[in-house]
Amino acid sequence: MATHLLIPFSIHAYAHQAAQAQVAAGKLTSSLVSRLDLFSKPGKWESMLEGVSEVGRLPSPLEVCTYARRLADANPQTGAGALDLYRVTCPIGVLLCIFEARPEVIVNIASLAIKSGNAAILKGGKESRLTAAVMSRVLAQALSTTELPADLIQTVETRQDVADLLHQDRYIDLVIPRGSNELVRSIQIEARMPVMGHADGLCAIYIHDDAEVKGTIGSVLDAKLDYPAACNAVETLLVHSSQVDTLWPQLASALIEKKVTLKCDSKSKAALPPSPLVQDASQADYDTEFLDTTLAVKIVSGVEEAIDHINTHGSHHTDAIFCAATEQHPAAALFTRSLSSANIFVNASTRFADGFRYGFGTEVGISTGRTHARGPVGLEGLVIYKYIAKAVGAAGVQAAGDFNQGRQWSHKDIEKIYPSF
Amino acid sequence: MATHLLIPFSIHAYAHQAAQAQVAAGKLTSSLVSRLDLFSKPGKWESMLEGVSEVGRLPSPLEVCTYARRLADANPQTGAGALDLYRVTCPIGVLLCIFEARPEVIVNIASLAIKSGNAAILKGGKESRLTAAVMSRVLAQALSTTELPADLIQTVETRQDVADLLHQDRYIDLVIPRGSNELVRSIQIEARMPVMGHADGLCAIYIHDDAEVKGTIGSVLDAKLDYPAACNAVETLLVHSSQVDTLWPQLASALIEKKVTLKCDSKSKAALPPSPLVQDASQADYDTEFLDTTLAVKIVSGVEEAIDHINTHGSHHTDAIFCAATEQHPAAALFTRSLSSANIFVNASTRFADGFRYGFGTEVGISTGRTHARGPVGLEGLVIYKYIAKAVGAAGVQAAGDFNQGRQWSHKDIEKIYPSF
Repeated sequence: MATHLLIPFSIHAYAHQAAQAQVAAGKLTSSLVSRLDLFSKPGKWESMLEGVSEVGRLPSPLEVCTYARRLADANPQTGAGALDLYRVTCPIGVLLCIFEARPEVIVNIASLAIKSGNAAILKGGKESRLTAAVMSRVLAQALSTTELPADLIQTVETRQDVADLLHQDRYIDLVIPRGSNELVRSIQIEARMPVMGHADGLCAIYIHDDAEVKGTIGSVLDAKLDYPAACNAVETLLVHSSQVDTLWPQLASALIEKKVTLKCDSKSKAALPPSPLVQDASQADYDTEFLDTTLAVKIVSGVEEAIDHINTHGSHHTDAIFCAATEQHPAAALFTRSLSSANIFVNASTRFADGFRYGFGTEVGISTGRTHARGPVGLEGLVIYKYIAKAVGAAGVQAAGDFNQGRQWSHKDIEKIYPSF
Repeated sequence: MATHLLIPFSIHAYAHQAAQAQVAAGKLTSSLVSRLDLFSKPGKWESMLEGVSEVGRLPSPLEVCTYARRLADANPQTGAGALDLYRVTCPIGVLLCIFEARPEVIVNIASLAIKSGNAAILKGGKESRLTAAVMSRVLAQALSTTELPADLIQTVETRQDVADLLHQDRYIDLVIPRGSNELVRSIQIEARMPVMGHADGLCAIYIHDDAEVKGTIGSVLDAKLDYPAACNAVETLLVHSSQVDTLWPQLASALIEKKVTLKCDSKSKAALPPSPLVQDASQADYDTEFLDTTLAVKIVSGVEEAIDHINTHGSHHTDAIFCAATEQHPAAALFTRSLSSANIFVNASTRFADGFRYGFGTEVGISTGRTHARGPVGLEGLVIYKYIAKAVGAAGVQAAGDFNQGRQWSHKDIEKIYPSF
């Protein structure tokens, strides 16, 4: 399908001009325009298309058997046949996806929805309305050359459209909002169907007493600076008290050199020379997703305090422990078992939490919910399953009441395949 | 834990007397009292305990690895270590379970919640308030002898308690209502957290042109009469037009003999001799969950019309096709692929849709939703997962930005185990 996704450059030029006029008038920021623009940043358009091709190459997530059991054996004495049960994946149905500015999300979600057999209604940010309209037309044209319905992927434009759709639980099976906490929360209150929320990432890194210096500094810089506005960027740094005069000042110096503002508790501040970038943390700083080059810092007594802090203040998105790289590490074991986060990393930057990096091709977003799918949501998060039971052999139709009259259950595992008919 | 679940018989005697007084006063039906009573029906109490023991014997649903990949290989030239990703199951968190009269549901849900590592708040029907209070006390006593918190399973009593809790999405992760469509729908509208609904079962059986007579009659009787008030009892019968003068009159005669009222379309009625139990179907009958000995009947032209009817009128709970028992059967293949129901059976009674019968020990209920878990919900429906990524080897902490500077992803499957630390 990727070859159909060519937006005429004349339209791009028009949209680009219109956006620049808005920037000149002070109605749009240039950073927002840069997120809206699919062409100016080298490689952005190509990597969007590569994501589509990657999804195309992935195995189908449909009709995968995830559970198979013989419920009852055949009984030659009564002539009863066997009864087999299969659980096989199937599409969810109709998805309503609501997201903010970035227009490439349309293509990501459309490719995942089509590959997983779902219909989707998409609502992007109002700033990318023109791009969305073009992409929607291109998608419909591409779909019309296939056996799938041309209107499998549709777009709606206004907030009122969305408000109406959120009550249509008879027709829409899942809402996927991706944006601010406020957006997700308002949809959770209004929607009558399940909501898979993609909200804030208040991610933390805990530096244990045996973390080594060089890798820790490199990975904290990566987690904060690789893309500060991303939901998987680190916002809170928890440092073991034994590192306060050793690793911490070196790390702080590296962060300050990169112009990161450090919101420090008293102990972490006392270990550093004065600097305009070293400031006192307020309690609210530990509950804030900065989305820029600011980092809240706190000295903790050990892994237990770090776990308590993260489970209390974090958003259950992505959190990491940096510690010695040994095969057996009790603190890493406790950290991964005790956190309720969707993504928990040992010696890896929080930035690894991403569908492409996980090998899913692309992602709908990173779910911060507790049901259905968590973390980066790819094809597997867009399917559900049905149970198929099948009588085996020529002995006719099975009755459940027979098992009240002496017939025995066997409940044994059989080969996980899609049942043949 | 089963040995703790002994309700003092003095309390049972008191509750039994109180209930009989309500029946005498015309305030409760005796059928409801029989559903409330855990002792009078032989085997009911024992099978409730057997369900608990069965859940205890099942393997733990927690810390099961369902996805494992090496994201990146080690690179001896740069000294970078490998990076491995695991997806492992974990509890959802806090469940709020709302159900109607039957008090044994408390024990079913409590045993599943404890085994799956979840906390649960339970609200039963007001008619089983006394039984629930006793069971809640027994559960707390039993839990207090373990390492688990004694208040892991709690009960609340009033509708107002529930109304308040439905807004506590910060503390409650999933609501599980089990009851009428109205109950489930009102909770879907009010709740701010995900809802896994267990609502109506408007189940259908389609009898294909090659269905054999004897097994079909036995299984339709089973599906209608084994427990007519159950959600997996059949409510609509769709008969292939070629069977209207052959199998259908024999089946109708067997149903009438068992006092089943048949709500027939004109074609199915014309094939039967007059009887007070043979009546004209209204359009609404095909959208009605009778929950008693009434069955709506319609003659259809084939499997396509049956599929259309079920997807339009059914509740996506459990539907079955009865056909010839051959290895390859195109109608069975189409039926199982095209229906959106949670449970789809080939030559088996709809009554098989049940957690115990599926081998889950017991069930929370049968979910009619399209996300998270469908069909009978056992332990697997009460867990979710987290991703754990782990740097391998002594090469320190991993940065995601390295992959923008030439480091390659490998994305290859590795052994699915719980990661060791």
